[in-house]
Amino acid sequence: MAKGKSWGGRFEGATDELVAAFSASVDVDRRLYHYDILGSIAHARMLAHVGVLTATERDTIVRGLETIESEVEANRFSWKASLEDVHTNVEARLIELVGDVGKKLHTARSRNDQVATDLRLYLRDGIDAVRAATTKLRHALLDVAEREADTVMPGFTHMQIAQPVTFGHHVLAWYEMLARDDARLQDARRRVNVMPLGAAALAGTSYPIDRAYTAKLLEFDAIAANSLDAVSDRDFAIESVGACALLMMHLSRMSEELILWASPIFGFIELADAYCTGSSIMPQKKNPDVPELVRGKSARVQGHLVTLLTLMKAQPLAYNRDNQEDKQPVFDTLDTTLASLNVYAGMIETVQVNRERLGRTAAGGHATATDLADYLVRKGVPFRDAHEIVGRAVRRGIETHRDLSQLPIEDLKQFSALISADVYDVLTPEGSVRARSHVGGTAPQQVRAAVAEARRQLQRKTQSA
Amino acid sequence: MAKGKSWGGRFEGATDELVAAFSASVDVDRRLYHYDILGSIAHARMLAHVGVLTATERDTIVRGLETIESEVEANRFSWKASLEDVHTNVEARLIELVGDVGKKLHTARSRNDQVATDLRLYLRDGIDAVRAATTKLRHALLDVAEREADTVMPGFTHMQIAQPVTFGHHVLAWYEMLARDDARLQDARRRVNVMPLGAAALAGTSYPIDRAYTAKLLEFDAIAANSLDAVSDRDFAIESVGACALLMMHLSRMSEELILWASPIFGFIELADAYCTGSSIMPQKKNPDVPELVRGKSARVQGHLVTLLTLMKAQPLAYNRDNQEDKQPVFDTLDTTLASLNVYAGMIETVQVNRERLGRTAAGGHATATDLADYLVRKGVPFRDAHEIVGRAVRRGIETHRDLSQLPIEDLKQFSALISADVYDVLTPEGSVRARSHVGGTAPQQVRAAVAEARRQLQRKTQSA
Amino acid sequence: MAKGKSWGGRFEGATDELVAAFSASVDVDRRLYHYDILGSIAHARMLAHVGVLTATERDTIVRGLETIESEVEANRFSWKASLEDVHTNVEARLIELVGDVGKKLHTARSRNDQVATDLRLYLRDGIDAVRAATTKLRHALLDVAEREADTVMPGFTHMQIAQPVTFGHHVLAWYEMLARDDARLQDARRRVNVMPLGAAALAGTSYPIDRAYTAKLLEFDAIAANSLDAVSDRDFAIESVGACALLMMHLSRMSEELILWASPIFGFIELADAYCTGSSIMPQKKNPDVPELVRGKSARVQGHLVTLLTLMKAQPLAYNRDNQEDKQPVFDTLDTTLASLNVYAGMIETVQVNRERLGRTAAGGHATATDLADYLVRKGVPFRDAHEIVGRAVRRGIETHRDLSQLPIEDLKQFSALISADVYDVLTPEGSVRARSHVGGTAPQQVRAAVAEARRQLQRKTQSA
Amino acid sequence: MAKGKSWGGRFEGATDELVAAFSASVDVDRRLYHYDILGSIAHARMLAHVGVLTATERDTIVRGLETIESEVEANRFSWKASLEDVHTNVEARLIELVGDVGKKLHTARSRNDQVATDLRLYLRDGIDAVRAATTKLRHALLDVAEREADTVMPGFTHMQIAQPVTFGHHVLAWYEMLARDDARLQDARRRVNVMPLGAAALAGTSYPIDRAYTAKLLEFDAIAANSLDAVSDRDFAIESVGACALLMMHLSRMSEELILWASPIFGFIELADAYCTGSSIMPQKKNPDVPELVRGKSARVQGHLVTLLTLMKAQPLAYNRDNQEDKQPVFDTLDTTLASLNVYAGMIETVQVNRERLGRTAAGGHATATDLADYLVRKGVPFRDAHEIVGRAVRRGIETHRDLSQLPIEDLKQFSALISADVYDVLTPEGSVRARSHVGGTAPQQVRAAVAEARRQLQRKTQSA
Repeated sequence: MAKGKSWGGRFEGATDELVAAFSASVDVDRRLYHYDILGSIAHARMLAHVGVLTATERDTIVRGLETIESEVEANRFSWKASLEDVHTNVEARLIELVGDVGKKLHTARSRNDQVATDLRLYLRDGIDAVRAATTKLRHALLDVAEREADTVMPGFTHMQIAQPVTFGHHVLAWYEMLARDDARLQDARRRVNVMPLGAAALAGTSYPIDRAYTAKLLEFDAIAANSLDAVSDRDFAIESVGACALLMMHLSRMSEELILWASPIFGFIELADAYCTGSSIMPQKKNPDVPELVRGKSARVQGHLVTLLTLMKAQPLAYNRDNQEDKQPVFDTLDTTLASLNVYAGMIETVQVNRERLGRTAAGGHATATDLADYLVRKGVPFRDAHEIVGRAVRRGIETHRDLSQLPIEDLKQFSALISADVYDVLTPEGSVRARSHVGGTAPQQVRAAVAEARRQLQRKTQSA
Repeated sequence: MAKGKSWGGRFEGATDELVAAFSASVDVDRRLYHYDILGSIAHARMLAHVGVLTATERDTIVRGLETIESEVEANRFSWKASLEDVHTNVEARLIELVGDVGKKLHTARSRNDQVATDLRLYLRDGIDAVRAATTKLRHALLDVAEREADTVMPGFTHMQIAQPVTFGHHVLAWYEMLARDDARLQDARRRVNVMPLGAAALAGTSYPIDRAYTAKLLEFDAIAANSLDAVSDRDFAIESVGACALLMMHLSRMSEELILWASPIFGFIELADAYCTGSSIMPQKKNPDVPELVRGKSARVQGHLVTLLTLMKAQPLAYNRDNQEDKQPVFDTLDTTLASLNVYAGMIETVQVNRERLGRTAAGGHATATDLADYLVRKGVPFRDAHEIVGRAVRRGIETHRDLSQLPIEDLKQFSALISADVYDVLTPEGSVRARSHVGGTAPQQVRAAVAEARRQLQRKTQSA
Repeated sequence: MAKGKSWGGRFEGATDELVAAFSASVDVDRRLYHYDILGSIAHARMLAHVGVLTATERDTIVRGLETIESEVEANRFSWKASLEDVHTNVEARLIELVGDVGKKLHTARSRNDQVATDLRLYLRDGIDAVRAATTKLRHALLDVAEREADTVMPGFTHMQIAQPVTFGHHVLAWYEMLARDDARLQDARRRVNVMPLGAAALAGTSYPIDRAYTAKLLEFDAIAANSLDAVSDRDFAIESVGACALLMMHLSRMSEELILWASPIFGFIELADAYCTGSSIMPQKKNPDVPELVRGKSARVQGHLVTLLTLMKAQPLAYNRDNQEDKQPVFDTLDTTLASLNVYAGMIETVQVNRERLGRTAAGGHATATDLADYLVRKGVPFRDAHEIVGRAVRRGIETHRDLSQLPIEDLKQFSALISADVYDVLTPEGSVRARSHVGGTAPQQVRAAVAEARRQLQRKTQSA
Repeated sequence: MAKGKSWGGRFEGATDELVAAFSASVDVDRRLYHYDILGSIAHARMLAHVGVLTATERDTIVRGLETIESEVEANRFSWKASLEDVHTNVEARLIELVGDVGKKLHTARSRNDQVATDLRLYLRDGIDAVRAATTKLRHALLDVAEREADTVMPGFTHMQIAQPVTFGHHVLAWYEMLARDDARLQDARRRVNVMPLGAAALAGTSYPIDRAYTAKLLEFDAIAANSLDAVSDRDFAIESVGACALLMMHLSRMSEELILWASPIFGFIELADAYCTGSSIMPQKKNPDVPELVRGKSARVQGHLVTLLTLMKAQPLAYNRDNQEDKQPVFDTLDTTLASLNVYAGMIETVQVNRERLGRTAAGGHATATDLADYLVRKGVPFRDAHEIVGRAVRRGIETHRDLSQLPIEDLKQFSALISADVYDVLTPEGSVRARSHVGGTAPQQVRAAVAEARRQLQRKTQSA
């Protein structure tokens, strides 16, 4: 078998072919076709509005572009690498379809402002799609949080059992991460939704264009205020990818916990079969593939962020061909983030919580030691003395293989006469979580209040959108 | 000379010392002292407000903390690595100063929510400082832009001379970058300014705290809605560092251009001596050290962003000691960004523009070829024919070593009978830039309008702040 | 036109479909088919060698696998996403072709050691291909260096003209970068070429395998010494991608210089048309697209390195599904690096050097001031005094718009009586470079010697390979 | 309390002060003093060797430099930011000490080749120190592996219990990671140990230097072959930091496992108190601070790698001030890596393994299901049928809450008549691991053989060093 078979030959072509293959971007940027056509239609309408095109020319061009859109969607469009990119492919086909009038479309425009416009339109829709998927996952988390508002589990710091919390409360921590992601994406969208068209190659144009008119047609919030900046700026891509990198980092944290919890060592949860792979030979074994893949994919989006920042580092104005490299990381970031969110939303709804195991673990690690100290302080014991008393009580528990809450009252009284039967209200995990009843605390009633408040927020958001 | 002298010995100490040195953070986090004390005073006031402390206890604690602040600022505070971090150093000193009542300060609080609060307070001020420095640089850019609104220079794409622009217009492109940075920092600040206090170790507290009261004292905009999230979240740091990484990337682009322009090959500008190093032996030589350093420092901040994202990747809730590593990159990011902005603001004001050289270069590259084509189109020549005519005219210019604008009218008329004397209005760089007179275009009057608009924006911002 | 058309629908499928699409890797990893089959054939041979398969079984399996290879290469293989990955696709087809005996191929093996083996075999060939392309580019650089060994140009520090160098010398600096890249890739290859097969899922196998036998068949240099490490290790991928990231960083530096030099402002070189795009309207304009794209692509490979390091961060042993995400960055890194090298090798050979402009520029910046100081020191003038004398001479040159080398001897003598006519031997750029004649210096004879030495190295390498 | 107190004032100084503070590097690069002096002494000796200095001048300079070294080490050296960097500080002090002859030291040298030389000398020692610390940790791991060669534990894939392994085998997987790190550092050292001196500013020097002589004095393996490359190259720093980033990634993986294993949920190990923090109130609680910090610090080194790659991206030759930014990430990388290794070596030796818990867990997850299938295949059952039989047996185990190995022989026989009493040899975890007895397998005897082989390797390395 020829070694290197897959490597040979690829780069043996004639110079021109090699360079053409190296430079062409249409395999990647053809995904922008819808936005390229959208932008061109608006541009044609504006040109007619200011008198550079006649109404007839405009209508011919618009019909031609609509035809092209249909062709692409019906897979009848013939993409040509020799025509380099999506813009030239579309334009060449337009001229083929409508003749010389098609050439007028490029009046007062350049590929430099055109590609920036396309990418912004794409990202605007992409952000909207990611936000919608985030909302779906947030709703799923709220459902779980409400269902498990009373489920006690051990809360961890340093992977040690620290204090009891409720499962619902833990899931709401994830909700908060996503709520911030959504806010960041919303802010990024405002800076994405600014129109470069009119900047032309770099300096603007001498045609009497009406940028506000085009912006209105394309539903842009604002017009790029400087033509050099308009064609060279890729902040909007970096910021959007950065917001997705944070979001994916959040999913990596949730994934880490789901993977641990689904391990038989923890045994806290079970993921539905659809999100795992099994083994015919070991029917009890379930690999949590989906959270593992999502954890892995978070690395990928972080890499894309680095690519984009490095790409722009020290680039002089205005447009350089380097920027062709911005598309692949942007596309893959949105694809990865969207797919991860969608599969996550489905998975979360199916998580089965092993309440018995959670409760037993929470009751077995002296997790309420802090509660006992607080109890003593409230009864007047000085802080330092309270700590010492609790330390001795825990040590007794360890020796007798019992949790603090399982020590009999007479034993506890030996450590302090101020301890009475009401101590069990704080010593049980249930009592402990109930006591943490302030805004942001883990008490079931706070969890339910937080769920309700979150639902109100989501509804307001939906209504205002 | 002993090889490895600087390496030996450092790690030969007793185990405990080694680990203590490895774990201690006080050398880094002592910078938070002001915010740690600020937070503690507010916490003490809240505890008194809800009756956990008496008014006397509160006053004793507050006076103690104020004393500590004075000690630190007078360099009379004795920081101890054995006390690990800023929080414990301050608390231990408080107890030393005021006795056992000092221990009550830590009621209903944990280092987990305390450090998150300190870092947010620090970042809030840090962002304000960066924004103020950004504003200063923006003002400096506007001054230069206004001064050079009429200065014609070659505009570049692909480092080739493309079309004439004005120097003022180019500088305004930089201004736009910074305006976006400021907006991003403003958005980040909103998410920074959320109070974790009250989350305690991870689950909240059983004391009857009033988080809204503390938040008001500390001027927080909101309260963290989930205690687990409150102690584990570092989004606010990542987002802030991300905004600074973008800002520094912008400065790296300006630096690249300043370095090139200050090269004798370009000869476009001269930087003031204060921002360069010279050579006694070559008095004409000036190394643009400041922009070079800033370009280099942009890499540093990008590295910090990667550190923070990687730090948080796949971390389970709630608090893990890993997070101690968040401070150094945050501190260094703010220091680096602030220093870069401040030195830049001073430097930009002193840039001397070599107008003669710029004008000559703009007039020497056939940069107005597009203008000639547009002229012909406006006179009714079909687009494709116009291009062909201009191509031939440029070729004539190349052969005769003259720019398009220097070809005599009789020569030009040979290429098209439609060309008349008014062609020079568009063929000179001045005519070319004048013609690009729409919002965002490079015409001097547009530059002046953009400067005026930007000044109005900055003023509104100042008034509302 | 329906907004979001390209976003809708994609994630509306049934759960199982969604997850299947999310988890399947065959679209990416099918590129490994050749190596998967290569590894399977060797595995089958080993199994027969130790008696687990009969000779007939082995031959049946091998023939089946060879058939599959032909099918894939003839584009007649039907890849199925439902079969997840390349391994399962190949195995399923084998069973289809040869019946139940095909199932025995997976004896004493797991997908965990199989995929690690495939990826290493792929990378081994990939590294060899990159090294071959590097060698091609190195030869091209040596040709240019030899051709331009006498061509004087200005050498830059801080983008200021510092001292004259020869163009050949400058190009040899690039050569050195690539020589290091090759050495790093060679080192990486040694660590790539280690065989995981035999590790099975994570713990090895109870079958009496002969790993040395398989390793010999597959031309591995060594056997992975620990089964858990064998399936979890991805160092080889990170190190290889890291070496490529450095290489691409080098190409980004060469590109930066080529782009500047090809700018009309510098005018140092001209790139062949094939590597640029032009403009019908401005026939003198040539955008250096290839170096711009390569500069951009260097960012992409850096991003992949970050992805892989982040992917592995804090992953527990042994195998986790996260690792499926290793392939895309590895593949794209090799593709990008290889394509960049190949197009570069062609381009470098065609670079036209504008010797006249280079010489004029080198002679116009007082670049030989250091040489004059060294001349005076050699004549006995104290160092400090020499500097002062030169400073004054340069100032005179600036005032009279002449380079140091253009000042008449009588003028120069005014600054020091020790200056005589032989001073012009050091004052001209040619004299200056000739004087720097030690190993590594810029003198033409050193450049020729360095070219000869480099050619010997490359020949030795070719012979030993 | 004045808001922003810590921000105010810092940047209010006079321009010159601001810029001086911004540009000065001596606070960072003074750490190079030893190497700067080492290099200067060698340079002085070479200058005397070729006759540029007299023997007396040489001795005066060498004595002066030795005095300075003593002053620095006795903390009597007065570092001045106004003198910018370590080189100028040392040189200025030399002139102060020995007069004008001190100025001759800088003959045939520039700060450009000097700083590159210093950094390489520093890194050479740094790499040696990191390698020594790696060796120490490797020895510690071998001791643990030998001690726990028979300790059975569950092996995990996807965090699910997959197959039994031995604890010693698992620890040897960590050993392999470090062995690769050492090899990579050794390779990097070869490329670090190349001498730039003689490159001067960028073009070499006209003095008759003898670079081979200097290289021998400084124990460099080779001389940089091109002067432009010599002053601009920072590959050696990137490669070294890259090797450390991989090493730290490995420590992050070990840390992840130690943290999990030390959690009461796993209960596999206990870390010595010295490496943890405890709680007075919960004496059983132990936070694994050291592995958590190391996991966090791995992010930091990854960030430094990104900084250095980004720093060099697209930098034109030869020297630019950007490169001043290379030192901080290099220093911090070596400090962090060295400290992490040293603290780890101590910690590993103290890990207490809970053998009973490990054994019980390994025996509780049907982890030997694969072994049963292999057993049946060996007895002649077709592969597919074997799988089906095992699946049914495991299901029985699940229903009756017993591990496969705990099912009575009569039960097992029901699934296949071919099962006899010897099945327990493979069904127990001990039998399972014993059966995986090939190179790289988990059998205790293989673990002992691997330990012995590793010790031989380490000894050979020590002897050859």
